[in-house]
Amino acid sequence: MTDYEHFFSRAALKSQGSAIRKMGVMAVRVPDMISFAPGYPDPAVYAWEEFREIAGELLTGRDGSVLQYGPTRGHKPLIEACQEILASRGITTTAEQMLISTGSQQGIDLVGRVLFDPGDVVLVELPAYTGAISAFRNTGATLVGVRQQADGIDLEDLDRALTRARAAGRTVRCLYLVPNFQNPTGLLLSLEKRQLLLAWASRADVLIVEDDPYGALYFEDTATAADTRPIKADDDEGRVIYLSSFSKTLAPGFRVAWMAAPEPVAAKLDLFKQTQDLMPPALDQHIIYQAYRRGILTGRLPMLRKFYQEKRTVMQEQLRAQLGDLITWPEPKGGFFLWATLPAHCSTDEMLLRAIEQHVIYVAGSAFFVDGTGANTLRLSFSLPSKEKIVEGVRRLTRVVKEEMAGRHKAPVEI
Amino acid sequence: MTDYEHFFSRAALKSQGSAIRKMGVMAVRVPDMISFAPGYPDPAVYAWEEFREIAGELLTGRDGSVLQYGPTRGHKPLIEACQEILASRGITTTAEQMLISTGSQQGIDLVGRVLFDPGDVVLVELPAYTGAISAFRNTGATLVGVRQQADGIDLEDLDRALTRARAAGRTVRCLYLVPNFQNPTGLLLSLEKRQLLLAWASRADVLIVEDDPYGALYFEDTATAADTRPIKADDDEGRVIYLSSFSKTLAPGFRVAWMAAPEPVAAKLDLFKQTQDLMPPALDQHIIYQAYRRGILTGRLPMLRKFYQEKRTVMQEQLRAQLGDLITWPEPKGGFFLWATLPAHCSTDEMLLRAIEQHVIYVAGSAFFVDGTGANTLRLSFSLPSKEKIVEGVRRLTRVVKEEMAGRHKAPVEI
Repeated sequence: MTDYEHFFSRAALKSQGSAIRKMGVMAVRVPDMISFAPGYPDPAVYAWEEFREIAGELLTGRDGSVLQYGPTRGHKPLIEACQEILASRGITTTAEQMLISTGSQQGIDLVGRVLFDPGDVVLVELPAYTGAISAFRNTGATLVGVRQQADGIDLEDLDRALTRARAAGRTVRCLYLVPNFQNPTGLLLSLEKRQLLLAWASRADVLIVEDDPYGALYFEDTATAADTRPIKADDDEGRVIYLSSFSKTLAPGFRVAWMAAPEPVAAKLDLFKQTQDLMPPALDQHIIYQAYRRGILTGRLPMLRKFYQEKRTVMQEQLRAQLGDLITWPEPKGGFFLWATLPAHCSTDEMLLRAIEQHVIYVAGSAFFVDGTGANTLRLSFSLPSKEKIVEGVRRLTRVVKEEMAGRHKAPVEI
Repeated sequence: MTDYEHFFSRAALKSQGSAIRKMGVMAVRVPDMISFAPGYPDPAVYAWEEFREIAGELLTGRDGSVLQYGPTRGHKPLIEACQEILASRGITTTAEQMLISTGSQQGIDLVGRVLFDPGDVVLVELPAYTGAISAFRNTGATLVGVRQQADGIDLEDLDRALTRARAAGRTVRCLYLVPNFQNPTGLLLSLEKRQLLLAWASRADVLIVEDDPYGALYFEDTATAADTRPIKADDDEGRVIYLSSFSKTLAPGFRVAWMAAPEPVAAKLDLFKQTQDLMPPALDQHIIYQAYRRGILTGRLPMLRKFYQEKRTVMQEQLRAQLGDLITWPEPKGGFFLWATLPAHCSTDEMLLRAIEQHVIYVAGSAFFVDGTGANTLRLSFSLPSKEKIVEGVRRLTRVVKEEMAGRHKAPVEI
């Protein structure tokens, strides 16, 4: 039997599977499980009929490029479409700044490889998106967390974190954040702070990685398009790398997202994308492009906003009615997530075992904190389950939380 | 204007775009250009009608998973299909050894990240696939080339390269090679050498990365399926990471390939794939699975072998008739490539400018050599151009080569 440990790179030796993720995967297989765990869009609102029609037109063989190798940076008409979308968000770009990525996760990974050396410090929010945490850690970088307030990242804590890291001799090249309906908190960064962040980045000479998968899905009862204006829209110095995606608005199975970066950064991202997968999926890009060009994406956005807003409302009302005196949360003004905080002594990691017993799951908040805190928090995603499931799921969760609060824990189940 | 150099990782600072690639991209835009450069399959033989029918059935919305997030390792039925394909090639696998990758290029990149630290030595063939060269270099590894003979890699030179690297204190964890109809040489590794390589890997305590995109496309006039038996088929010690793909047999635009690795290695590859793109494209995986399950892939292979064999034959006959006394090449027994060697004083890099003037392009061989040699070699791909274009392209190439030989060079054109 060959021993493989001595074949692994340092990064591979350090990389660890998430126990929570594994448990989630197993739990999903339990019949009747209600899952508030994954941040999946709801296939009930995918444009199936339109995709079907478009695919039928594309797969005639008249245009070989639909299934051929193509440019690393993506299908040119789709790049132009993304530039139009960016323009509608206030962002002016050149073609040389653009890349279509194989999902935004790839964009995040590429940013990590292009910007970070082992030992560098990357600033992220407390809590932050786990996919970015893992991708950045895989480059050997150290992640340092910055607190959030109701209106987004705490600028004083940001300054402190930067100063501390630099005083310790560490290289700090960037801040990663999700300003619109953050994963996992659902928080919306205030417009004022967006401006202050740009000034801070200039002063501190760092780049900002602005990850914006949810911005188009604001809820009209509490937010407007203007509230989601990207930081990148006012980026006069070229300090922002902006990422967005079709995964939440059209469908994630296509694996098509895009990014806009200063030209020298985009050129490096291109080189790493070449060696990473040569190109984004061709058929997917063609379908997405057609869905955009025919107005299917834009036309459906009001319906999608309303659809997810209603689910948010149902979850919020149920939580308020049943758990309003035990947990707190910031109202989600868009996106897919509700972020709940239990009293300080609770452990949502341990509670998850009992939740599975009750056939309901969530993501324990600790996974999102790079500083080891957050034990009493959890992320509930309302995007995928139906309203009926949300009602029933919150009912089950209520039993679990009340048990936890009362300290009447049964023995943990075997997983 | 922000200066970006100080934001880049060491790997990004080192990464360089390929001048040849850029020139190729520009040259393709010239009308009437005949390109022997890219190793693209021919869309004329894609199963358009079948793909269209399958896509129509998949996109009804009955099965949400067709466009949803899914497992990092891939769509389970497709993994099982790949295991069946592997079994037909003599390779027995467990599900835990398998990953669907977003094209084989991703598999290569993941291998690099999991196995190599900066400064490690990776052994590759002289010449070797440029996509692997770049991916491995992006990990900071040093590539050391091993000569090839008519029956594949030179085992004595392999031993010398390993000994030299280790004597210099370098870590050597693996040999990367393409045993079947190698890119770029088209060479077929002999069955005897495959056995000897396994023994060598065991003795040397290294892993073998066996990249096999072309194995199913052997030419029946000169090779059999038995000649392409993977090294992995006889890998008793778990030393081989095997990669294969649907890109050359079904279509590259789908970005669906697969790999089989020892379980501990597969687990690490999984972790890096998670942070790299979460999952392979979902619709693409479903289409490929159906194409396999309905017998479309297997049923078309004899036609594909014949189709590419005929193109090979046309190219070879034309070359023999027109350039037979000036260039030499090993007969391609499968795959997409013919590898030509000119007399020692020629430079195919310089000659490329004149080739573009004559509206024909190829890839200059130097790009495939990690030791800076190969100036008088070139790769001709016969897979994409029609037979008529091959005839005309060789005619143009003949003029270029004869000019080069005669030393009657015009001034280089401006590009």
